[in-house]
Amino acid sequence: MIRNVAIIGLGLLGGSIGLAIRDHAPDLRTTGFDRDPEVREAAKARGLVSAVCETAEDTVREADLVILCVPVGAMEEAARSFADALPDGVIVSDVGSSKQSVGKALAAALPGRTIIPAHPVAGTEQSGPEAGFSSLFTNRWCILTPEAGTDPAAIEAVTAFWTTLGANVEIMEAEHHDLVLAVTSHIPHLIAFTIVGTASDLEEVTRSEVIKYSAGGFRDFTRIAASDPVMWRDVFLSNKSAVLEMLGRFSEDLTALQRAIRSGDGDTLHDLFSRTRAIRRQVIEEGQDDDRPDFGRDDHG
Amino acid sequence: MIRNVAIIGLGLLGGSIGLAIRDHAPDLRTTGFDRDPEVREAAKARGLVSAVCETAEDTVREADLVILCVPVGAMEEAARSFADALPDGVIVSDVGSSKQSVGKALAAALPGRTIIPAHPVAGTEQSGPEAGFSSLFTNRWCILTPEAGTDPAAIEAVTAFWTTLGANVEIMEAEHHDLVLAVTSHIPHLIAFTIVGTASDLEEVTRSEVIKYSAGGFRDFTRIAASDPVMWRDVFLSNKSAVLEMLGRFSEDLTALQRAIRSGDGDTLHDLFSRTRAIRRQVIEEGQDDDRPDFGRDDHG
Repeated sequence: MIRNVAIIGLGLLGGSIGLAIRDHAPDLRTTGFDRDPEVREAAKARGLVSAVCETAEDTVREADLVILCVPVGAMEEAARSFADALPDGVIVSDVGSSKQSVGKALAAALPGRTIIPAHPVAGTEQSGPEAGFSSLFTNRWCILTPEAGTDPAAIEAVTAFWTTLGANVEIMEAEHHDLVLAVTSHIPHLIAFTIVGTASDLEEVTRSEVIKYSAGGFRDFTRIAASDPVMWRDVFLSNKSAVLEMLGRFSEDLTALQRAIRSGDGDTLHDLFSRTRAIRRQVIEEGQDDDRPDFGRDDHG
Repeated sequence: MIRNVAIIGLGLLGGSIGLAIRDHAPDLRTTGFDRDPEVREAAKARGLVSAVCETAEDTVREADLVILCVPVGAMEEAARSFADALPDGVIVSDVGSSKQSVGKALAAALPGRTIIPAHPVAGTEQSGPEAGFSSLFTNRWCILTPEAGTDPAAIEAVTAFWTTLGANVEIMEAEHHDLVLAVTSHIPHLIAFTIVGTASDLEEVTRSEVIKYSAGGFRDFTRIAASDPVMWRDVFLSNKSAVLEMLGRFSEDLTALQRAIRSGDGDTLHDLFSRTRAIRRQVIEEGQDDDRPDFGRDDHG
């Protein structure tokens, strides 16, 4: 039974977990820590957790579940910072976007502990202690990637926890997770960062023109490319092999389209563009996006 | 003075112009035509224009302004279909996303006529006569690309027309338009079509997984990749040289990031990701996107 949840890192994800617990599981007690004193102050002001602690060790002392909500490159150091204060029987989890590297980092920092790596597939382009909200996980998937041999009761407890916060839980191997998320999240982010960078560096087209005419499609990419730089740097470095593999596939396909444009092969373009339209319908049918045109932005229509 | 507006093509753009006139300029009379009889019926039912005509010729007979709202590859044929019925002094315009090719097509089809190519930089992923809405152009830019020597009074009339519908008007050369829009619209669409195609063709990751975990970023791309296939096929074929030029720049930048990931160069990644965040802020400050997190989709936050 989970009664006390310790949240390490009080940004968008950590803060949203705290607020979601307050709304959906008010009987749980939450403690929280962030190494940035200003974030701790903001977390207190917003009431993200029941108690903001001054050290990571104090945060975890009575926890049944510790959730690391720090960039994936900072997981190991963060875990070491509270390792000596962990009580018996505690479950340690996280919210990192790559899972093989986090699994290894936590196993190295916390030998003998019950570790259940997790990734709630949810977020916005904003970050920091002001960015979280309690419905972030509603109808979103949370993927758990426990090693073979992990205590089934612990897996069940973490599953119940995320279900309470509104998420649907799925269990898969860390390696497969990293491949799937490379496609559905990491490559889309990398592409968005790239095109926004390309556009802002052009000599023939001014920055002001790029901004003014962004409603033609570019503005969607700027949203994704506004995501937290440290978080994303760490994601790409920690999921290097899957990202490079999927980037290779994408580049091949882009080259094929480039050739179709150059040779005036309209049928190839039309066939692809018709197929991709069908994927959008499935995303909406599965409840993974808003079905209003343009995401309902600007309250159009 | 524009009193009668003829709209050729009653899809998202044509329909939105009709509805925007009804809301913002109710004294204007609108006629409309679509070569698809089902679209004409739907247009009548929604009241997209004052009168839906059975031929393009009947549509333009009394017009002061004719606006072609068909895919750019269909502009020339559509213009020829009503050329003989055009009254003296009429202005012919369009809403196509590439302007050099449309300018040439209309000049070829309508020799001696006053032609003012236009591109309202606005749209959604939806298409057809049910998709339009009257606020589509509100606070969006509309770019006019008249040839040198075009009657200034005609340019002024078209400028006033779009201003009345809520748009801000900018005038530039067609060649520059095609380069700017390649960056802010055509390449973002091409990239989105590509990654959605790549993701749906993978063997290691199922289609179902791609859909389920699309909230990690991919779902944004599916929206853009749901755009009208015929329209976009024509855009890429008609703006080939600017698209290939900008695609080359993008590919170079993507290769540089790939190298940074492979070599573990976190500083290069972090520097780019920090710069791109600033662009997002400018897009919002310029009123070109919704400032709510995640575009306000799902009514989060």
